[in-house]
Amino acid sequence: MTQQIVNPDEIGALIDGGALTEAGDLLATLHHGEVAGILDRLPRKRRGVAFRLLPKPTAVEVFDDLTAVSQVDLIADLGTADVAEAFDHLDPDDRAELLDELPAAVAKALVQQLTPDEREMTGVVLGFARGSVGRRMSPEVVHAYVDDTAAAALERVKERGHEVETIYTVPVIGEGRVLRGVVSLRDLLLSDPDTPLSAMMHKPIAAYADDDAELTAQRCIDRAVLAMPVTDRERRLVGMLTIDDAAEVVEQARDTDEARAGASEPLREPYLLASVLSITRARIVWLFVLAVSAILTVNVLEIFEGTLEQKVALALFIPLLTGIGGNTGSQAATTVTRALATGEAAPRDVLRVAGKEVRVGLTLGTVLGIVGFAVAGLAYELEIGTVIGLTILSICTMAATVGGMMPLIAKSIRVDPAVFSTPFISTFCDATGLIIYFMIAKAVLGI
Amino acid sequence: MTQQIVNPDEIGALIDGGALTEAGDLLATLHHGEVAGILDRLPRKRRGVAFRLLPKPTAVEVFDDLTAVSQVDLIADLGTADVAEAFDHLDPDDRAELLDELPAAVAKALVQQLTPDEREMTGVVLGFARGSVGRRMSPEVVHAYVDDTAAAALERVKERGHEVETIYTVPVIGEGRVLRGVVSLRDLLLSDPDTPLSAMMHKPIAAYADDDAELTAQRCIDRAVLAMPVTDRERRLVGMLTIDDAAEVVEQARDTDEARAGASEPLREPYLLASVLSITRARIVWLFVLAVSAILTVNVLEIFEGTLEQKVALALFIPLLTGIGGNTGSQAATTVTRALATGEAAPRDVLRVAGKEVRVGLTLGTVLGIVGFAVAGLAYELEIGTVIGLTILSICTMAATVGGMMPLIAKSIRVDPAVFSTPFISTFCDATGLIIYFMIAKAVLGI
Repeated sequence: MTQQIVNPDEIGALIDGGALTEAGDLLATLHHGEVAGILDRLPRKRRGVAFRLLPKPTAVEVFDDLTAVSQVDLIADLGTADVAEAFDHLDPDDRAELLDELPAAVAKALVQQLTPDEREMTGVVLGFARGSVGRRMSPEVVHAYVDDTAAAALERVKERGHEVETIYTVPVIGEGRVLRGVVSLRDLLLSDPDTPLSAMMHKPIAAYADDDAELTAQRCIDRAVLAMPVTDRERRLVGMLTIDDAAEVVEQARDTDEARAGASEPLREPYLLASVLSITRARIVWLFVLAVSAILTVNVLEIFEGTLEQKVALALFIPLLTGIGGNTGSQAATTVTRALATGEAAPRDVLRVAGKEVRVGLTLGTVLGIVGFAVAGLAYELEIGTVIGLTILSICTMAATVGGMMPLIAKSIRVDPAVFSTPFISTFCDATGLIIYFMIAKAVLGI
Repeated sequence: MTQQIVNPDEIGALIDGGALTEAGDLLATLHHGEVAGILDRLPRKRRGVAFRLLPKPTAVEVFDDLTAVSQVDLIADLGTADVAEAFDHLDPDDRAELLDELPAAVAKALVQQLTPDEREMTGVVLGFARGSVGRRMSPEVVHAYVDDTAAAALERVKERGHEVETIYTVPVIGEGRVLRGVVSLRDLLLSDPDTPLSAMMHKPIAAYADDDAELTAQRCIDRAVLAMPVTDRERRLVGMLTIDDAAEVVEQARDTDEARAGASEPLREPYLLASVLSITRARIVWLFVLAVSAILTVNVLEIFEGTLEQKVALALFIPLLTGIGGNTGSQAATTVTRALATGEAAPRDVLRVAGKEVRVGLTLGTVLGIVGFAVAGLAYELEIGTVIGLTILSICTMAATVGGMMPLIAKSIRVDPAVFSTPFISTFCDATGLIIYFMIAKAVLGI
């Protein structure tokens, strides 16, 4: 316990060495969540072996905690019959997530083995669109009624507590299942048993089932609520989004955003396990798109080849200038993409953002432009200094404005803002920046 | 309720128009968490006005949910006496976080107004190093003993439930406060009251108080545990880390990582509220460092000015090549930085990572190099095509390897890996890439 986590390599080595009993004993000392963490990081073959070492009740708990990728591999390796019990034990939302990843035939075989009740619950979750709160909520909810007393509500919790994902936040409903409030189990337990719920319930932080899952999950975490009631548009209770599921939604969204801001797709496996081929695949498409669009810069420079021949020194500053443009643009894009993800900014704010970024860009450009003017003017000629200073000022202003607006435009045309941000912007700013550079150079140097 | 959140602009407009009663009524319809979310996004002056509109009990709850930045502003605007009650109501970990942000004199004044009990608890948290779990845990814990029955444990929870941050995970201790296991409140409530805890408790997922807060918080979320017991090195229970605090730790760390990967510092306020000056300040230092190091590329190109004069066409490909290098490097750096943050990779894996990235880089470089050879060979001359193809192959290999190793090296010399990643790498790869380019060009073209 306490942080002396067993290294996955250790388990892997025991399995490779045929010391299966030792490996099993070592895993038995750990919490099922830690075991799942280790299995997720084992190569696929060893993962199957390690899973078979677990006693049945532990195996069911561990399966629940695995990533969907590991679950899919295990089902393929062990067969649907062997995992039927573990599959039945999953919460409906986790089951829906896994079914999305499985081949249709395997998914069908597994669903047919479910109890009718569980099959129905899974159907409820799968009825909501991907990316909606409904797809990530738990449809099995223990609720209380607005005219219950604390004692009556506590009794309901005790009755149904075994079946549901959480009992710590109890939604309170009125006529027609309409959500009226929430009470915490803590309040139920610590209040006078005769208190009516209407006197002790709080206003809920709730969501509609068709709300965006990422924004809602972020709200759940920002507001630190353990579980959010989910309703339909008529405010009838349909499920609960728990904070651990919310944290998973936010993590997955940020993983994708971060990978795309770094011009690749997120890996589906732990980095050290991923093959060279799958890492290459996650990166090559983006790199190729960027390389092809960078051919634009070759074409731009071709137009100015005559100017370059007359003044080769102009070529020396190309990487410096494109670098400043790319960095300024990606600074703005990163900030605005994040503001979008947290709900701090929305596409309707595009003009406010543009106004802000023009001023930020001008300020950055003035400071850096003066430095550029002084350095280039002293090291080369005063005229070159003027060209560099003016170009930096213009590029910074352009890059900050475009970088700030691009994620908002992406969002309003329903493209992932992170996809549009850093990589796209650096290419765009490179080409536009070079045109600005040579136009200024031709004007100032008179060539 | 349900997602029809009031827009901060709406409240702001009411306050500006002097319609304070309407503003107060509107806020009164919301959960205190949503009110805090709105106040966080109001400009400072309006935030103070809005806070005064809240009835006292609500104000105390709202203050708890505000960001530390908003809390600091409010204390400065309202004075320490007015916020004394709200300050006393904070959990000790939140109080410690706020004290870190306050001027020493203000912090002292506030601490002196605390009850002796609360003052002691705050001291416990402040005794741990910044960035450790101890600094983010709640020291007020309700625990049970290993020879308690479920009924006895439930009784302890009811007795102390009002004072502690969470009652849903109950740590079970033995002699000398040593942590032995955990039971969930759900199990306590749903089991036979006479069950001894020793028969129903689980192995804990726990942490040492001096463990790294970010890695531990990530573990709490990955394993979806509502609260983790925190112990000293002798495994004596000292506190609990709750999942909502863990989510906050991870969010803050990722905000910083993302901002730095985009070459800026994270903003302390919501983006739309932040002034042009404070946004500029968050970006200028990084931009300046990058611009100064990019002067290196000017120097590199100067060395090859003679080569450029003989073959101006070589200049056309400079942005394309530096772009490919920068993107390949930042792809690798992003992936490895993320693997470090989740604990998937550690500095000791540096050779494994380098070996993997060399192969990924060679694969990427071969594919892109062949395309580059064909395109440049057809559009210009065969020899130029050869130069471009070979350069792309070399740059991809170099950039992926350096990009993958750099975060691990940063971590092992205790520098933030995100700081070292994208911006640093793109500058390094630009300069090195240009040297490779001109060396290959000189060799192939014989100039």
